Amino acid sequence: MKNKNISEIGEFELINTIKKQFITISHDKNITANIGDDSFCFKFGKNNICITKDMLVEEVHFKKEWISPQELGKKSIEVNVCDVAAMGNIIPKYVFIGLGLPSETPETFVNDLYKGFKKPCNEYKITIAGGDIVKSDKIIISVTLVGIGKQEIVKRDGAREGDLIGVTNTFGNAGAGVALLYKHGIKYKYNKAERYLISKQNNPKARLEEARKISKYLTSLTDASDGLYVSVNLLIKNSRKGAEINMNKIPISSNLKKVFKENKKQLNFALFGAEDYELVFTVPNLQAKLLKKLIPEISYIGVINSSNEVKYLYNGKEQKIKYSGYKHF
Amino acid sequence: MKNKNISEIGEFELINTIKKQFITISHDKNITANIGDDSFCFKFGKNNICITKDMLVEEVHFKKEWISPQELGKKSIEVNVCDVAAMGNIIPKYVFIGLGLPSETPETFVNDLYKGFKKPCNEYKITIAGGDIVKSDKIIISVTLVGIGKQEIVKRDGAREGDLIGVTNTFGNAGAGVALLYKHGIKYKYNKAERYLISKQNNPKARLEEARKISKYLTSLTDASDGLYVSVNLLIKNSRKGAEINMNKIPISSNLKKVFKENKKQLNFALFGAEDYELVFTVPNLQAKLLKKLIPEISYIGVINSSNEVKYLYNGKEQKIKYSGYKHF
Repeated sequence: MKNKNISEIGEFELINTIKKQFITISHDKNITANIGDDSFCFKFGKNNICITKDMLVEEVHFKKEWISPQELGKKSIEVNVCDVAAMGNIIPKYVFIGLGLPSETPETFVNDLYKGFKKPCNEYKITIAGGDIVKSDKIIISVTLVGIGKQEIVKRDGAREGDLIGVTNTFGNAGAGVALLYKHGIKYKYNKAERYLISKQNNPKARLEEARKISKYLTSLTDASDGLYVSVNLLIKNSRKGAEINMNKIPISSNLKKVFKENKKQLNFALFGAEDYELVFTVPNLQAKLLKKLIPEISYIGVINSSNEVKYLYNGKEQKIKYSGYKHF
Repeated sequence: MKNKNISEIGEFELINTIKKQFITISHDKNITANIGDDSFCFKFGKNNICITKDMLVEEVHFKKEWISPQELGKKSIEVNVCDVAAMGNIIPKYVFIGLGLPSETPETFVNDLYKGFKKPCNEYKITIAGGDIVKSDKIIISVTLVGIGKQEIVKRDGAREGDLIGVTNTFGNAGAGVALLYKHGIKYKYNKAERYLISKQNNPKARLEEARKISKYLTSLTDASDGLYVSVNLLIKNSRKGAEINMNKIPISSNLKKVFKENKKQLNFALFGAEDYELVFTVPNLQAKLLKKLIPEISYIGVINSSNEVKYLYNGKEQKIKYSGYKHF
């Protein structure tokens, strides 16, 4: 048998290989959400403790020319807060920050990075509880976040036939922002709409407050860190259901419409652009109106059915959609 | 003011810079051990939840030529188990593994690494609860371990005048092992004693069972991941005490004595060699005998006093000991 290397296998197959390895490990009956959900959660007394871990690597997840150290620090925390928000009404409490830094890193860079870490920590009342620093060739930021929830968590597997599929805000901005950076770099004279898209890439905001407000009504929940297409697929697959998505209902910001005028391009960013960090959820039809009262930015983009596949409709006609997301390896 | 880079500042000063940044973050009254101890712990109901995080980077913490992928996986877990053991009677429960891997990594390497992760996880009944994989230039293993303790934790700051300073086994083996690898590489024909030293470097064992047995008697506790000298200093500084160490009492293995015959060299490895992962603790004189009955490998190497400094005696004469440990940056 040929010994493949991981660039040949591809990230998803590698994760599957690893998941298989996990399965032989005996499971704990207190575990409420495991690998395959946005956070790992376990029951402790009447509470859920949720833990999430994300690693950002220079040149893979960010280019240091395109994002300021403060923004980078802030984003590292926000994306983890987003992962606990994707479990429902969870309060983020403690964060651990592991840094890999090249020897030539300026002291000011480290200080600015920490200013960035502290901003969302102050806002969400998260305690920076520890971490470590090691030497590395590229900048690595490895964040572990611990959150505590008093309510039941909302997993990816509870969607039911007839539930509506909702999202907390517009899609495609962050992906369009990074596309602009790839095209023109950071020093280009961007207009206001373009700057908005880039700021959505560099300054994401976790929908923690939104999750707190609506989680008790939801049947399933995830965040859109890998794009709307992936999120919808995760909810469908985990719930063993299908869905029909009305692409005309996918919310697109006026700034994205200004910068990329072609509707097909906008939808491409929305479905595959990634890093929007909006919540994607399912809710029983009866509660859908109430949720929109609580959060007016919510849009409903489709409905759950029992087909085991996702059908995309545009102007009433079925579209063939092929995954074209980012490949890590 | 000149903007220094971090290789000019040095790791310890950098950590201090960062600690200062932490201080402005408001603290949670449930936190029982914070940055500056072996694990971060917080009170939850009647229990302590302890979390530790370690990052191993290729060429900084290991060379992949010198350690097999299985050993590397196993070691990544053991060193974290050691960090929770250093908080007392804590049961390790859940582990998260973040991997950074170069594209050309063979699939077999990843599989072997996981076999290594699983070994101690099966032994300690730890559930591998999640993680992520990212692309990187060098291999990065970032492990987060969660443990739960029903008893009070043992911190670094409780040593009292007259307490004895104890260690759970011999020192210097792991440091001598890595010195051999630096000198001869991995392919050299090592004798049995030399292979023992190298195995102590590549196959460390957390003193979890030992911590469970003795922690309720201890006044302070840490592990010796950075060498005995650093560990003693940590206990003294955190407890605002001093100590007298009898260097003749520092336990040295017969294998280390065989390979490095000079007593001064042995003691140098013991004090500064690092990665022995033995427990270093203080205990009231009255309980010292009982502990040695529970764990016969325990040695007492010194006594706590109120001097605010550590005096090292060899054959009754005071020695000038200067820190010569490993500098990360």
